[in-house]
Amino acid sequence: MALDFLKLNDDNSIRIPAGDLHKQVSAILQGVGTPTEHAEIVAKILVSSSLRGVETHGVGNAVRYSQSIESGEYTVPQTVAVVTETDTTALLSCGNGLGFVAAYQGMEMSIAKAREFGLGMTTIKDGHHIGMVGYYPMMAAEQDMIGMAMTNASRSVRPALGARPRVGTNPIAFGAPAGEERDFIFDMATSTVASGKIGLAKRLGVQMPVGWAVSAEGEPITEPRGDRGEDWAMNPLGGTREQGAHKGYGLGVVVDILCGVLSGGGFGAQLSGGENMTWTMAIDIAKFRDVDDFKVMMDDMIRELHATPPLPNEDGVLVAGDPEADFEDDRLMNGVPVENGQYDEMRQRAVQLGVEVFI
Amino acid sequence: MALDFLKLNDDNSIRIPAGDLHKQVSAILQGVGTPTEHAEIVAKILVSSSLRGVETHGVGNAVRYSQSIESGEYTVPQTVAVVTETDTTALLSCGNGLGFVAAYQGMEMSIAKAREFGLGMTTIKDGHHIGMVGYYPMMAAEQDMIGMAMTNASRSVRPALGARPRVGTNPIAFGAPAGEERDFIFDMATSTVASGKIGLAKRLGVQMPVGWAVSAEGEPITEPRGDRGEDWAMNPLGGTREQGAHKGYGLGVVVDILCGVLSGGGFGAQLSGGENMTWTMAIDIAKFRDVDDFKVMMDDMIRELHATPPLPNEDGVLVAGDPEADFEDDRLMNGVPVENGQYDEMRQRAVQLGVEVFI
Repeated sequence: MALDFLKLNDDNSIRIPAGDLHKQVSAILQGVGTPTEHAEIVAKILVSSSLRGVETHGVGNAVRYSQSIESGEYTVPQTVAVVTETDTTALLSCGNGLGFVAAYQGMEMSIAKAREFGLGMTTIKDGHHIGMVGYYPMMAAEQDMIGMAMTNASRSVRPALGARPRVGTNPIAFGAPAGEERDFIFDMATSTVASGKIGLAKRLGVQMPVGWAVSAEGEPITEPRGDRGEDWAMNPLGGTREQGAHKGYGLGVVVDILCGVLSGGGFGAQLSGGENMTWTMAIDIAKFRDVDDFKVMMDDMIRELHATPPLPNEDGVLVAGDPEADFEDDRLMNGVPVENGQYDEMRQRAVQLGVEVFI
Repeated sequence: MALDFLKLNDDNSIRIPAGDLHKQVSAILQGVGTPTEHAEIVAKILVSSSLRGVETHGVGNAVRYSQSIESGEYTVPQTVAVVTETDTTALLSCGNGLGFVAAYQGMEMSIAKAREFGLGMTTIKDGHHIGMVGYYPMMAAEQDMIGMAMTNASRSVRPALGARPRVGTNPIAFGAPAGEERDFIFDMATSTVASGKIGLAKRLGVQMPVGWAVSAEGEPITEPRGDRGEDWAMNPLGGTREQGAHKGYGLGVVVDILCGVLSGGGFGAQLSGGENMTWTMAIDIAKFRDVDDFKVMMDDMIRELHATPPLPNEDGVLVAGDPEADFEDDRLMNGVPVENGQYDEMRQRAVQLGVEVFI
């Protein structure tokens, strides 16, 4: 749910057709040696994020991925290896390459296993950033399945009662198909706010609300920080003890267990910046009950929630995926706004790599 | 994580040996026609809750379950029926009986399926209260598995931006085994606070913090309410838009989907008070990697979290399950404190039903 003061507008961004952005992302990644098939996966997911208004995980990130490949931080071309496998489960290695590629293949495996055996689950080590985590459950929902995905990250969030960062922002995503209504697509960081929002606030030069971050003394910080360190931390969802900080913290550790400990790739406090382990699951609804009946009940639920009388001064109640679907409708039609700075970076990077400039 | 002002003490409670409480709960339930085997399941789970300091879901509730049976709200003896089943999945009907019985059998099925096929999942309709949701993942963790359980409930929590209750407190529980450290056992309502804590605040005559509940106009309420209605609602975890209320709300809907929509038993806004649909899952760790290696990494993670420097004025950082395990250690040794009023009620109920008084 984008906060108004962080929104892109005509002053700070430029609109580009989604198809051109896709070509540009793919070209930049191929320009540093990424195989076409892999570059296309990353382009698809990054453009989906930008279309859906998740700017922090959008096309602008292609530049830094290409730098991570060039510097050798990412191994590209990568080999996604199956380390262990059963009918319903798999442990994969991302091969230290683009996290997107292994997460995409991991969710495809989960879906295939669920189609045959009811449930499918993969956990992925040796990985990097997988972008907008909500993309992967969308893959399952399109197949009439319930999907879940999580990914862990290096330390940036303090445990409840703690004064130093020890857990990542560790997002959780969940998707389920509806019938006539839009699919339920939920994607949350287990911190008060996603770390990308702090970066965006910094780039836009705005203050953060009290409750997003604290100093090592536990005092609120409102000046957005661009660094990571022991002298400040993001708050877990819930914020304070009385308001349930142990819940956001606990959810973050759940993500560490499924992504980092089950895969053996490591929990947040063991990871370097840029390392991310990932977990996916698919559930074949048809194994439990008639899919159409399921979707009718989803529609009923979504309509009931939309019909909730709103708080004073609010327009109405939303359901997870609503704001993103609204963005997508607009941006497919009118182009995807790209932050001015990121637009320049992408063009310069394309020129530098000697690949075609599409934007 | 119990809040200090809601804790039981020598003034408001009396200590009883756990074994006697178990016998008393079982006797009261058998006194209204519950088969021994089912009464023993409920007693085991209620006593575990009381031992672990989860007073709101403890032995005192046996009285109201016995009343629900006597009034015909619960069908007892019940038949837990398998509606659909595959190797890895099952849809169960609780038969409108004690929710505990079907949830227990559901988690046993999930564990058995996971043992054979890697993963197991059950969703349960026609159900009632299942008590402390964290009990069920503990069953999995004891079997070297990761366990999850969720249960939905009738409307008491407002959606983010909404001013009326439309979602239940819909808790999520997760458990994973550690090696030398204590198992990670996490159990959270997706509201700011569990509804039982508001009931407990009311019984103890204390005010609630701002942030737990609001009026239909969105104004904070600090006087604990004992009723349910359209004129007030609990807040979703996160509390406000800026602090992530859409996250707690979204998690609540995830629970509604897995428990209510996948089972067909109904989502929160469709349920009457006392109706609860339930979901369980088990993951066999050994299908992914060596269980001992998994536990060593769990230990490392738990120690790292415990070693986090605490906020000023805090004793130290906890890991999910720590406070409950501490309570259990004390209470197994020194008896389980039962709130004075609940103690009287249980004795009176036993006398009324003509069953033996053990406490």
